Amino acid sequence: MELQFAVAKIGKYASRESGDTLEMIERPHGGLSMVLVDGQRSGRSAKAISNVVARKAVQLLSEGVRDGAVARAAHDYLYTYRKGKVSATLNILSVDTRSRTLVISRNNPAPVIVHTAERGCFLLDEPSSVVGVNRNVKPSISEIPLEPDTLIVVYTDGLQHAGSISGSDVFDPQSLVSSMLEEGIRDPQLIVDNLLDSAVEMDSGRPGDDISVMAISVSSKRGDESRRLTGRLPL
Amino acid sequence: MELQFAVAKIGKYASRESGDTLEMIERPHGGLSMVLVDGQRSGRSAKAISNVVARKAVQLLSEGVRDGAVARAAHDYLYTYRKGKVSATLNILSVDTRSRTLVISRNNPAPVIVHTAERGCFLLDEPSSVVGVNRNVKPSISEIPLEPDTLIVVYTDGLQHAGSISGSDVFDPQSLVSSMLEEGIRDPQLIVDNLLDSAVEMDSGRPGDDISVMAISVSSKRGDESRRLTGRLPL
Repeated sequence: MELQFAVAKIGKYASRESGDTLEMIERPHGGLSMVLVDGQRSGRSAKAISNVVARKAVQLLSEGVRDGAVARAAHDYLYTYRKGKVSATLNILSVDTRSRTLVISRNNPAPVIVHTAERGCFLLDEPSSVVGVNRNVKPSISEIPLEPDTLIVVYTDGLQHAGSISGSDVFDPQSLVSSMLEEGIRDPQLIVDNLLDSAVEMDSGRPGDDISVMAISVSSKRGDESRRLTGRLPL
Repeated sequence: MELQFAVAKIGKYASRESGDTLEMIERPHGGLSMVLVDGQRSGRSAKAISNVVARKAVQLLSEGVRDGAVARAAHDYLYTYRKGKVSATLNILSVDTRSRTLVISRNNPAPVIVHTAERGCFLLDEPSSVVGVNRNVKPSISEIPLEPDTLIVVYTDGLQHAGSISGSDVFDPQSLVSSMLEEGIRDPQLIVDNLLDSAVEMDSGRPGDDISVMAISVSSKRGDESRRLTGRLPL
């Protein structure tokens, strides 16, 4: 089998930087974890918050701490550090090669889109609390077997709310993902690009919020034994 | 301007995993850092070493510690942890958007290939000590202005030594990079893929050592404001 992943991120229009932080880290027992954090508000102050939460999470993940404990610790840390006054959403998406599962941890009202060969396309949308405010916040955790024809799409609320400021129709990420799956599209890069481009278009090219999308897909094809990573950023 | 980067990694033939670790982290003051560590020997034991060194380095980088201090700390940490008996090579390649430079930190006898508009193609190859053994080891640090038409290629010694076991000609990464530059190739993904594929070919498809290659290129083109990341790994 082969795992492919892709991330695309864009900041709110006219904001100097995105308030979302995405970090990726190897898991010491095998596999990798991706951490996506959306700090409250936007720009510099949001970035400072999301950076602190993501840093704490990747540090613990790199030490082999299990995902549920990482999300709890990231909450406790932000709660203590900012006295319960500042919130962030936190998603951890892990490929755990030891348990042969994909582990999805949500502290984010925005749902996660999942497609599996067995169940088709469905949402993980049970109520979920952000981190940093309230006490004893827990993540909502789902485990999906690491099997071919699996796709997971995670995003920050900027994607969902695209178009809501300009008053046009609200963007529906799930229906767009479903239609791409029906067309046989499984490449995570195409999927995140389409989602991001469509959202930015609904905001008339000027995103009303920071938007980040990440996707992981598992396929039965088997290329060579190499691991590869590529990326770009504007300077 | 736009920055593009690419990494390709493959493990020694018949080894369960690569002993090299590559991690990437956002710099809190802007930009990103890539950390590449090659642990002594190969397989599991090498992976445990490279993981510890890379983890320490990304943790400090994420807290805003400067690259030279990070390399020193990673050395001291491994030296203390393994009592000076275990070595690793360490390269840190940073895009520092605050100082507008690319910072290259080497604790690795293998050279780094650099191309700039002003100086053309040259090697960073002054003598450099690995981390973990000997006392008071320092990194060799170079700063290159963040300007268009700049390319940096960093690799572990597995790339250099490709072909040396089978007794065929020794692989020359610099001449391959030079000829790609002459052909106008600037895409870091093409560059690392060509380097890795050529090295594996010289080892008759069975790499005699872990091989990792990373490249960063700065170009004057300017796409949209998004940041993108993609990758694949065999499962």
